[in-house]
Amino acid sequence: MGRRIHLAVDVGATWTRIALAENEVFTKRIAFRTPREGGRLSVAEEIISFMEREFKTYLPALESVGVGTIGPLDVKRGIVMNTPNLPVGSFELRRPLEEYLGKPVYVINDAVAGVIAEKYYGDGRGLENIVYVTISTGVGGGVIVDGRVLLGKDGNAHEIGHIVVKYDSEVKCGCGGYGHWEAYAGGANIPRLARYIAEKNTSAALNSNVGRRALEGVLEPREIFEAARAGDLFSRLVVDEIVKASVAGFASVINVYDPELISIGGSVFLNNTDLLYEPIVKGVGKSIVNRQPTIKPTLFKEDAVLYGALALAVYKPVVID
Amino acid sequence: MGRRIHLAVDVGATWTRIALAENEVFTKRIAFRTPREGGRLSVAEEIISFMEREFKTYLPALESVGVGTIGPLDVKRGIVMNTPNLPVGSFELRRPLEEYLGKPVYVINDAVAGVIAEKYYGDGRGLENIVYVTISTGVGGGVIVDGRVLLGKDGNAHEIGHIVVKYDSEVKCGCGGYGHWEAYAGGANIPRLARYIAEKNTSAALNSNVGRRALEGVLEPREIFEAARAGDLFSRLVVDEIVKASVAGFASVINVYDPELISIGGSVFLNNTDLLYEPIVKGVGKSIVNRQPTIKPTLFKEDAVLYGALALAVYKPVVID
Repeated sequence: MGRRIHLAVDVGATWTRIALAENEVFTKRIAFRTPREGGRLSVAEEIISFMEREFKTYLPALESVGVGTIGPLDVKRGIVMNTPNLPVGSFELRRPLEEYLGKPVYVINDAVAGVIAEKYYGDGRGLENIVYVTISTGVGGGVIVDGRVLLGKDGNAHEIGHIVVKYDSEVKCGCGGYGHWEAYAGGANIPRLARYIAEKNTSAALNSNVGRRALEGVLEPREIFEAARAGDLFSRLVVDEIVKASVAGFASVINVYDPELISIGGSVFLNNTDLLYEPIVKGVGKSIVNRQPTIKPTLFKEDAVLYGALALAVYKPVVID
Repeated sequence: MGRRIHLAVDVGATWTRIALAENEVFTKRIAFRTPREGGRLSVAEEIISFMEREFKTYLPALESVGVGTIGPLDVKRGIVMNTPNLPVGSFELRRPLEEYLGKPVYVINDAVAGVIAEKYYGDGRGLENIVYVTISTGVGGGVIVDGRVLLGKDGNAHEIGHIVVKYDSEVKCGCGGYGHWEAYAGGANIPRLARYIAEKNTSAALNSNVGRRALEGVLEPREIFEAARAGDLFSRLVVDEIVKASVAGFASVINVYDPELISIGGSVFLNNTDLLYEPIVKGVGKSIVNRQPTIKPTLFKEDAVLYGALALAVYKPVVID
């Protein structure tokens, strides 16, 4: 029997990556910028053109393809719907890829891919209750309860970034709501949070390079964490608020899903574990009624979505039709 | 074929109720005070003594028994563990009842019984994604996602009352945490919330009978709602806070479970729908990313747990072993 061949695709807001797996081991991978403009087929066409160019000799033996993508997603049809993260808005993935390849293509939300990765290849092997949390541009989640990936009426039973962590908050989320976890911890929102804190703490802000940049509205999230690490007081205030909001978010996740394992990924978290990980783990204990789960950074680093897309293609753990 | 006979039991913090169902219709019911003291068997013994007295002639034909109970619960063994709501603390339900009856006894958390009632007999018939929320002494939930009752590692994937709705809150929950939904909306906590608000708004409080009683620590939750209805300004402040916290709680429930239907029960809610229902339904729209579900008071009023216990006995929708 020959090698089993699968393709895993990670469609991100900035980069799209394709990896070839032979017997479930990645042996070749490419990355390209996700098309920002064009029609509903632009992303699929770019994926197809790279498959044609880089993986053509493997396609006849291909079994199936798994795709983890930015959302929101119409999971049944494999269409990304009105994503706030790309100007193209809505785009099709499943149908054009299946037509080109003549093989099954499974499409899932990227954070759901993350939890599937943990279940099949990561710390979640053998466990039935796992939550994957990504703290990146936004805050997202993928959830397995009682051995099954949660979907819900529209496939979104995991929008943990929009848990309200402060009902009287003035801090706005990218979705338009106020006081969501993502409004505090999502990379796209951190500059707005920093500006809000700077306006409330003018003297601390004016004493800080980062605080002044926050007031000018030109700050990058990375600068906040670097300055906090270097002892900048204003930046510590901002990181403290991100931690407090995240403690509430994680505590709520534990109380509503009762997981055995929470695995955390996403660039904002993975690049700043020294500032975020320990205070979060310590903090949640005071706010939970359920037994505390293991809380760990994902072993997959930036590859959580690719591994989840692979497990989706190989094991089809989610019944979508 | 004869009539199908089941017993449904609702073990509450104050009252325990037993109802006889013939062909899934309740034909006889009794209620007695839940024993507060005694050993691990005191509650089961009282249930058995009432069954012996009131339902003896039906027991030979009995198929099975469903029990909805206050928690926390060891669902596998049918034991209530360290409940904060009764001095007796821990007590067994499943084993002593099965030994006495010689028939299967199914035990589930009361709010989980509530969602099962909706699924089999209520507004949730035909739906696969339903949350039952009870706002009563505490705030609890029962959750069905993708057609299955969520359990989680210890059977508690529904502790929605302990969603953190304000991460920097000074309002304490019965569980010891701060800023939980239940800290604001649970009947047992409302007097403490009222006192907190009175201390922050002394002049409004001192101008109000209810406010003065709140400061003295002798207030009943009922008084707050009645006075708010009558136009008392201090009481309106308290009710506003309960509503805002509940809007956040419901929004988070929608975002994490993606339900088609939220059914609401519990005495605090059902006795005050005029003050709570409409502002909650209106409020959640601004804080959700998932499509808004139908939100309705339960049709079962105070009988949601009994109907759920019956459906549990008849349809066994939860695999626990």
